[in-house]
Amino acid sequence: MSGLLADFLDPLLTDPVVADLIGTKVELQAMLSYEVALAEAEAEWGIISKEAAAHIVKSARSFAPDLVRLSVATLRDGVVVTDFVKQLKVHVGPPCADWVHFGATSQDVTDTVLAMKLRGVLDLFDQRLVALLGALDRLATEFGATELMGRTRMQAAIPITVGDRLAVWRGLVERGHVALGPVRAHMLVVSLAGPAGTSERFGSKINDIRHSLAGCLKLGVPDYVPHAARDRIAALGNWLSQVTGALGKIGQDIALMAQNELGEMALEGGGTSSAMAHKQNPVRAEVLVALARFNAVQVSGLHQALVHEQERSGAAWTLEWLVLPQMLNATGIALVHADALLGSIRRMGK
Amino acid sequence: MSGLLADFLDPLLTDPVVADLIGTKVELQAMLSYEVALAEAEAEWGIISKEAAAHIVKSARSFAPDLVRLSVATLRDGVVVTDFVKQLKVHVGPPCADWVHFGATSQDVTDTVLAMKLRGVLDLFDQRLVALLGALDRLATEFGATELMGRTRMQAAIPITVGDRLAVWRGLVERGHVALGPVRAHMLVVSLAGPAGTSERFGSKINDIRHSLAGCLKLGVPDYVPHAARDRIAALGNWLSQVTGALGKIGQDIALMAQNELGEMALEGGGTSSAMAHKQNPVRAEVLVALARFNAVQVSGLHQALVHEQERSGAAWTLEWLVLPQMLNATGIALVHADALLGSIRRMGK
Amino acid sequence: MSGLLADFLDPLLTDPVVADLIGTKVELQAMLSYEVALAEAEAEWGIISKEAAAHIVKSARSFAPDLVRLSVATLRDGVVVTDFVKQLKVHVGPPCADWVHFGATSQDVTDTVLAMKLRGVLDLFDQRLVALLGALDRLATEFGATELMGRTRMQAAIPITVGDRLAVWRGLVERGHVALGPVRAHMLVVSLAGPAGTSERFGSKINDIRHSLAGCLKLGVPDYVPHAARDRIAALGNWLSQVTGALGKIGQDIALMAQNELGEMALEGGGTSSAMAHKQNPVRAEVLVALARFNAVQVSGLHQALVHEQERSGAAWTLEWLVLPQMLNATGIALVHADALLGSIRRMGK
Amino acid sequence: MSGLLADFLDPLLTDPVVADLIGTKVELQAMLSYEVALAEAEAEWGIISKEAAAHIVKSARSFAPDLVRLSVATLRDGVVVTDFVKQLKVHVGPPCADWVHFGATSQDVTDTVLAMKLRGVLDLFDQRLVALLGALDRLATEFGATELMGRTRMQAAIPITVGDRLAVWRGLVERGHVALGPVRAHMLVVSLAGPAGTSERFGSKINDIRHSLAGCLKLGVPDYVPHAARDRIAALGNWLSQVTGALGKIGQDIALMAQNELGEMALEGGGTSSAMAHKQNPVRAEVLVALARFNAVQVSGLHQALVHEQERSGAAWTLEWLVLPQMLNATGIALVHADALLGSIRRMGK
Repeated sequence: MSGLLADFLDPLLTDPVVADLIGTKVELQAMLSYEVALAEAEAEWGIISKEAAAHIVKSARSFAPDLVRLSVATLRDGVVVTDFVKQLKVHVGPPCADWVHFGATSQDVTDTVLAMKLRGVLDLFDQRLVALLGALDRLATEFGATELMGRTRMQAAIPITVGDRLAVWRGLVERGHVALGPVRAHMLVVSLAGPAGTSERFGSKINDIRHSLAGCLKLGVPDYVPHAARDRIAALGNWLSQVTGALGKIGQDIALMAQNELGEMALEGGGTSSAMAHKQNPVRAEVLVALARFNAVQVSGLHQALVHEQERSGAAWTLEWLVLPQMLNATGIALVHADALLGSIRRMGK
Repeated sequence: MSGLLADFLDPLLTDPVVADLIGTKVELQAMLSYEVALAEAEAEWGIISKEAAAHIVKSARSFAPDLVRLSVATLRDGVVVTDFVKQLKVHVGPPCADWVHFGATSQDVTDTVLAMKLRGVLDLFDQRLVALLGALDRLATEFGATELMGRTRMQAAIPITVGDRLAVWRGLVERGHVALGPVRAHMLVVSLAGPAGTSERFGSKINDIRHSLAGCLKLGVPDYVPHAARDRIAALGNWLSQVTGALGKIGQDIALMAQNELGEMALEGGGTSSAMAHKQNPVRAEVLVALARFNAVQVSGLHQALVHEQERSGAAWTLEWLVLPQMLNATGIALVHADALLGSIRRMGK
Repeated sequence: MSGLLADFLDPLLTDPVVADLIGTKVELQAMLSYEVALAEAEAEWGIISKEAAAHIVKSARSFAPDLVRLSVATLRDGVVVTDFVKQLKVHVGPPCADWVHFGATSQDVTDTVLAMKLRGVLDLFDQRLVALLGALDRLATEFGATELMGRTRMQAAIPITVGDRLAVWRGLVERGHVALGPVRAHMLVVSLAGPAGTSERFGSKINDIRHSLAGCLKLGVPDYVPHAARDRIAALGNWLSQVTGALGKIGQDIALMAQNELGEMALEGGGTSSAMAHKQNPVRAEVLVALARFNAVQVSGLHQALVHEQERSGAAWTLEWLVLPQMLNATGIALVHADALLGSIRRMGK
Repeated sequence: MSGLLADFLDPLLTDPVVADLIGTKVELQAMLSYEVALAEAEAEWGIISKEAAAHIVKSARSFAPDLVRLSVATLRDGVVVTDFVKQLKVHVGPPCADWVHFGATSQDVTDTVLAMKLRGVLDLFDQRLVALLGALDRLATEFGATELMGRTRMQAAIPITVGDRLAVWRGLVERGHVALGPVRAHMLVVSLAGPAGTSERFGSKINDIRHSLAGCLKLGVPDYVPHAARDRIAALGNWLSQVTGALGKIGQDIALMAQNELGEMALEGGGTSSAMAHKQNPVRAEVLVALARFNAVQVSGLHQALVHEQERSGAAWTLEWLVLPQMLNATGIALVHADALLGSIRRMGK
C-alpha cells in the first residue's frame, strides 16, 4: 500500500500501527533475538559451549548490520537471513562465529520472526475487537429498541428492531474474537529444524532446545516441522478475511441504511463531495466493503501457497510474503474504520 | 462438474458418493424431514396443536412433490422451499395446512437442509482422512528409513529419509482431520428464526423449540441467528481447501519425485499416452495439484459471500450455492485420488 | 452445477443449451471429426496414403466407442483421447490403424475439440448479446426520458434520466460484444503439434496440413504451438467474466432500484416468499450479481493455469477443465436471466 | 509492498521505477495538470471566460497544496480530489475560483490521473517487453539448436531442442506485447462527465471539450461515460496477469530445468543459503512463479469491482485502488527479474 499509493491515501487504506509492528526495525530486532536465544538455548543443552553463547550474546548487543548489503543480498538469496547471519558471524568473529545460527536454517529464522511480529499484531487486533464489541453494546443500549424494517433479498420484509440487526453484527465480531484463540495458538510458534527440516545437528535434544528457544521468545512449540506445512498460514488468512468479512457486512448494511430514501441511519461527519456540497457520503462504510472484498481475494493466495513443494518452496513462500502483509494491513485499517464508523452513528432506525 | 463436463471425465473429476449425498433425492427428503420435525417440535411446545402436527406428519408420508412445478417455481422464487411448502400445504389440506412451516422461512429450511446433507459428507471425509492416515503409516513402515535427497528451492540440499517427508504429509492430513471437529460443530446446526430472523411467532419458547427440532434432526443449536451471519460457511470452505491443499502438496511432491532423472518414486499403473507408449504419467498426483488450486480459488467465493447484506442476501446466498457443492466435490474426489495414489506407491526414495 | 446441485436449481443456475453444446455427445463427435479430418489432411499432403485415409474415414462412420471403457481409461490416463484413439485403431484395424492419429497427441485433439465446442457456445453468446442490446434499446425508447435520481456512493446526487443509466449498461454490453471478435479469433484454432509440440512427423508440410485440418474443422490456424501457451484460455476467461460483470452491474442496479422506498423500477413476476405473501423479490437481478462474483472468482483459476510447466502440464490443464465449463455455464445462464429480467421491466424511474 | 514489508525485501519484490511513476509527486502534478487543462479546454469552447482560464493557469503555477490537510480530508472524503480542488479554489481566489473544476467531479480527475500515470507505466512495460524479446532471441541464437528432453506431465517424453521451448516462451511474451496495444487504447483515456456522469454543464459542447482536454493531456477520448463502466480496468488487470503468467511459466520451467539431476540449465549468481554453502538457488525463477500466482489472485479483485453500482461506487472503486497498484508493481518487478534471469543463463540443454 504505502509506497505504491499516493501518501494521502494512507489514512484511508494503511494502518500505521500494523506497519510499525511488521516493519524493518522490528524485523531486524527479531532476527537478532532469534540468533541470541538460539545460542543460549543451545548452550543450555550442551550443543554449543556456554562461553561461545555468552560471546555471541555480548557481540549481538553491538551488532548493526549493513542494510544496503542486506538489500543486495536479499535480491540474490531470496531471503534476508542468509546475509544477516553472514554479517553477524563476521561481527562475532572466530572462533565463536562457527556457533552462530548453528543447526538452524534461514526459514527457521524467517518463520519465527513472522510469529514474533504477529504476536504484536494479533494482540492489537484482539484489543480492537474488544473495543468494537463495546461499541456495538453501546449502540444496542442506545438504539436497540428502535424499530427497523427487516429486509430480505433487498425488499422490505417485516419490522424488526435495530437490536435484532445489531445482534447479528455483534455475533460475527464476537465469533471472530473467539476464533482468534486457536489462530494464535497455531501461529505463534517457534521454528527450529535446520536446512532440510531434520534437526540433524540436535539429535535427541531437539525438543528441549525448541522449548528453551520458545520460552525465551515467548512463543509456543509446534509438534511438527513447520517448514513445508503451511496450514497455519492459510488458517491465519482465513481468520483475517473472516474479520474483514464481518466488518464488510456491517459496512454494507450501513451504506444501505444511510440511503436517503431509507433514512435508517444518521452518521456524523460523512465524506464531502467536490461537486455536490449537500452530500454526506458514508465513506468508511464503503471502505469496509472494499477491504472485505480485498481480503476475500487475498485469502486465495495463501491457499495457493499450501502447494509448497518438497522441503522448502521459494515460490510458495514468497507468495505468502506478497499476500500476508497486505491482509494484515487491510484487517488493521478495517478495524480502525469500523470503530470510527460505529462511533459516528447518531441515529439508527427511524 | 457432471453435466457440464463430458461423462467420461466423471471418474477423474467427480465424486459420485458426494454427489449422492447432496443430490436431489436427499434434498427433497431433508426438506420434508425439516417440516415434519418442525411440526412436532412446535406441538411439543404448544405452538401448534398436537392434532395438527399428527396430521402433518401423517400427510407428509404420502407427499410427492411435483418436480416440474418445483423447478419452474425455483426459477421464479430463487429458492425451492417456497413452492415445496406451497405444495405440501395443498397436500396437507385445510385446516392443518396453516400450521405447516409455521413461523419458519425458506432460509431456515435451506440452511438446515445444507447442514443435514453436510453431516453425511463430513462423516465420509472423516472416514477417508482416517484411511489416508493409515495409508501414510503403512508407507512410513515400509519406506520410512530409506534415504531421500532433501530439496529446498528446487535444489538438492542434504539427505533426509522418506520418513521425514512422510511426516510432513501426515502432519498436514492429521491436523486437517483434527480441524474437522470444530468445523462440524459450527456447521451442523439447525436454523429456525422466521422471515426476518426474529422468531416472532415463538416468543420465549424459541430456544426450546430449536432444541427439539435439532434433536429430531440430529443437529446442534447455534446461539445466534444464522441467516445473515455466514462465517461458518467461509470456515467450512477454508477447511475444505486446507484438506485439498494438503493433498495438493503431497501430489506436487509425488509428481516431482516421479520425474525420470530423480527416480525417487515408483508408481503402479500410471497413465498411458496416446503418442508415447513408454510413458507412465503420475495422473492422480497432478489431479491433486489441480484440485488444490481449484479449491484455493473457490474459497475466495465463500469469503466474498460474507458480505451478506441486511437480513438475507439473495446474491450472497446464491453465490454460496454456486461454490460450495464444487468444493465438496473437489475435496471428495481429491480424497479418493489421494488414497489410490498412496496405495499405488511401489517404491519411495532410492 | 447440474449433478451436484439438486435438479430443481437447474433453471436458476444451469444453462441447458450450453450444457448440450459442451456435453458428452458433442465431445465424442468432435474427437472423431478431428481424427477423420486429420487423416484427410495428412493424405492431402502425402503424409499418409489416400487409401489409408479413405479407410479411416469410412471406418469412422461406424465407430461407436465403448463408453464404460473410456471412463475407466480416462481415470488412468488423465485424458480421454488416449483410449478413444486406441479403440478407434482397433475399429479401423490393421494395417491402417497405424495411420490413425498419426503424428498427433492427445492434447492436439482435446484442445481442438474445445475450440470446436466453443464455436457453438460463442455463437450462442453472440446472438444473446445482440438480443440484449435490442432489449436495452427498447427500454431506452420506452423509459429513456424519464427522470431518475443519480446516485453516487449510495447517496442521491443529482437528477439524471433513465436513459443516462441505460447508456452505461448498453455500453458495457456492447463493448463485451465487440470484444468477442478477438476472443473468437484467438480461441477458435486448431492444434496439431505432436507429443512434445515439435510436429516432428510432418517436417516442412506442417503448416499446409494444419491449414487443411483447420479448413475442414472450420477453425483458424495459430502461428504458434498452443500446447503449453495458455494465454488464449485466460483471455477467454477474462471475456466471460467481463460479460457477467457487466450483467452483474445491471443486476445490482436493478436490485437497488427495486428497493421499496426508492421505487425506481417495477418488475413483473418477481419471486414469491414462503413466509411473506406480499413480497416481490428481484430474484434474477440478485442471481446476476451472484454469477458475476462467481466468474470473478473463477477467472483467477484460469490465470493460475498460465503457469503451465514444460511441454504439457497435467495439473494446469486439469485446472482449466475444472474451471472453464463452470464459467461458460455461468455466462450462459446470466445472459438468459438478463434477457428475461430486462423483458420483465414494467417501469423505470419515477 | 514497500512500507509493509521490511525494506530489504524491496529489491526482491518492489519495482522502484513503477513506484515513482505512480507515486505522490506524479499524482499531485497530474491532478493539477487536469484542472489546468480543463480550464483551458472550457475557455476554448466558451464555457468559461478566457480571462478566468488564464488566471487559473497562472495561479496553478504557484499552487502547493497542504499535504497534511489533504491526508485528513482524504480520510473523510474517500478521495483526495475533493480537498485538492477546495485548496486550489482558495489559492485561485474569487471570482475565478468558481470556474476551477467547473462541471467536473472527483472521479473525472481521479480516473484521468490514473490514465496519465499508466501512460508512463505502460511505456515502461512496453520497453521491457521488447528487451525481453531481444534476450529470448539471443538465447535462441546461442542455445536454440541444443537438444533438450521434452517433458509432458512431468515425465520425459521425446527429445526436442532448446529452441522449441524458447519459441513457446517467446510467443507468450510477444503476444503479451501485441496485446498491450488495445489495452493502451482503452485505458489511456480522459474522463469528463460531471457529478453523475451527465455532463450537464457542457450541453452539446461536451465532445469538443473532451477532445481539447484529451489533446492537452495526451490521452484518448472514450465514446462512453467511464465512471461506472469499469471494463477497461478489468481488461488491464487481465493483461498484467497475462504478462506475469507468461513470465511465471518461464520461471517455472527454469526452476525445473535447474534441478540438479536434470541439469538442463546453468545460471550465474544464484542465491546462496545460510546453511548450505554449496547450493545455488534459482531465486528469480521462483519469484517469477510467485508473482504470477500473486497477479492471478489479484485479477479476481478487479473483476469483483465490475459490480460497480449506480453512478459511482465508493466500495468498488476503492477495491480497484487496493488491487491495481499491487498488480502494476508485481508486473514491473517480474519484468525486471525476467530480464536479469534470462541474462544470467550460461547454458541451456545438455
